[in-house]
Amino acid sequence: MKINVKKNLLEENDAIAGRIREALSLQKVTAVNIMGSPGAGKTSLIEGILPRITEGLRAAVIEGDIASSMDTDRLRKLGYDAVQINTDGACRLDANMVWHGISALDLAGLDVILIENVGNLVCPASCDIGETVRLVITSVPEGDDKPVKYPLIFQGADIVVINKMDLKPHTSFDEGMVVRSITDINPSSKIFPVSCVTKRGIEELSSHILSRHLPRP
Amino acid sequence: MKINVKKNLLEENDAIAGRIREALSLQKVTAVNIMGSPGAGKTSLIEGILPRITEGLRAAVIEGDIASSMDTDRLRKLGYDAVQINTDGACRLDANMVWHGISALDLAGLDVILIENVGNLVCPASCDIGETVRLVITSVPEGDDKPVKYPLIFQGADIVVINKMDLKPHTSFDEGMVVRSITDINPSSKIFPVSCVTKRGIEELSSHILSRHLPRP
Repeated sequence: MKINVKKNLLEENDAIAGRIREALSLQKVTAVNIMGSPGAGKTSLIEGILPRITEGLRAAVIEGDIASSMDTDRLRKLGYDAVQINTDGACRLDANMVWHGISALDLAGLDVILIENVGNLVCPASCDIGETVRLVITSVPEGDDKPVKYPLIFQGADIVVINKMDLKPHTSFDEGMVVRSITDINPSSKIFPVSCVTKRGIEELSSHILSRHLPRP
Repeated sequence: MKINVKKNLLEENDAIAGRIREALSLQKVTAVNIMGSPGAGKTSLIEGILPRITEGLRAAVIEGDIASSMDTDRLRKLGYDAVQINTDGACRLDANMVWHGISALDLAGLDVILIENVGNLVCPASCDIGETVRLVITSVPEGDDKPVKYPLIFQGADIVVINKMDLKPHTSFDEGMVVRSITDINPSSKIFPVSCVTKRGIEELSSHILSRHLPRP
């Protein structure tokens, strides 16, 4: 007898992800899965785009972290609706965790959910959480070789944000090389150079996310 | 019947890690497990400390990556002995992978092995690879909240490097806060603020690693 545990767990995850996707579609809610290394600037990006997104739409945030509720506290202090999920050591959110997070929100009263995944360029790549849009952040000080070294997460991205562009003058970061390698791996991804400090690119990125939202009839 | 797959796999890993530790001890080889986020500067740090370490000792590098052999190529170009391990999607090196890496080296002809783990602040924390010293790199642009958000990896660290200190003037990084939170989590860890660009701290860190090496009789 051979038990393929990994396959069974994946199938269970994907079934829950399917239920999330169905619930989101029914309520016309766009959920953005935001992934990136620890310190790539996921929370800062969420803080950056929320004011623009909440101009016309109702938004909430699901914060995935190994430990602590620092990011949720940060967002609540700014007046945003945020739910904390601690993964208890797990290296990424899974569909079951997100299902619990969504159950704590009033889906019928929302248009957009920003889901901040655990800081990790590997594990979240292969775990469907039922999201509508997959957004990957890479940042200038991480260096220009990340897409080549962690291809899977870039392969599945709808949007790639190159964050911390304000630090570019102080590094040897080759923007052209990064754009070329992302495009090689995933020609259909939309790439946005952004700085949460100078606000460069925040407007363009927010508009693009808004353009992907299907308005309620 | 209940099969605890996770426990069995861990036990198997730890048994191999034990064999690695025994082989290293027998040959008086110090192996440093170098962990950190993608882009924290693991390869640059290895490049920084190798000249000082190879002044008196014989060293080799094991490079762990999801994909690509970019880092091994970088080190070989500089004339260092390096072995590439591609984890084929796995989010960290395990003992079996390291065992294969070590088998490709001549242990009797070595004093120090620097093992670059996969860029990840989560998965490597809980996986013993038989190392002698655990070194965690965090870097200034990642922000000062990493120890609080990823405590487990800092808890197990013998050495913590705060890298990219040259970028500190361009960020809001609070060095005192990071040092305090690392010390709270792990009072016995040695902390080194470093810059691979200005070479600040490289000498101190290299000397400390050398001081942990047990010379052959």
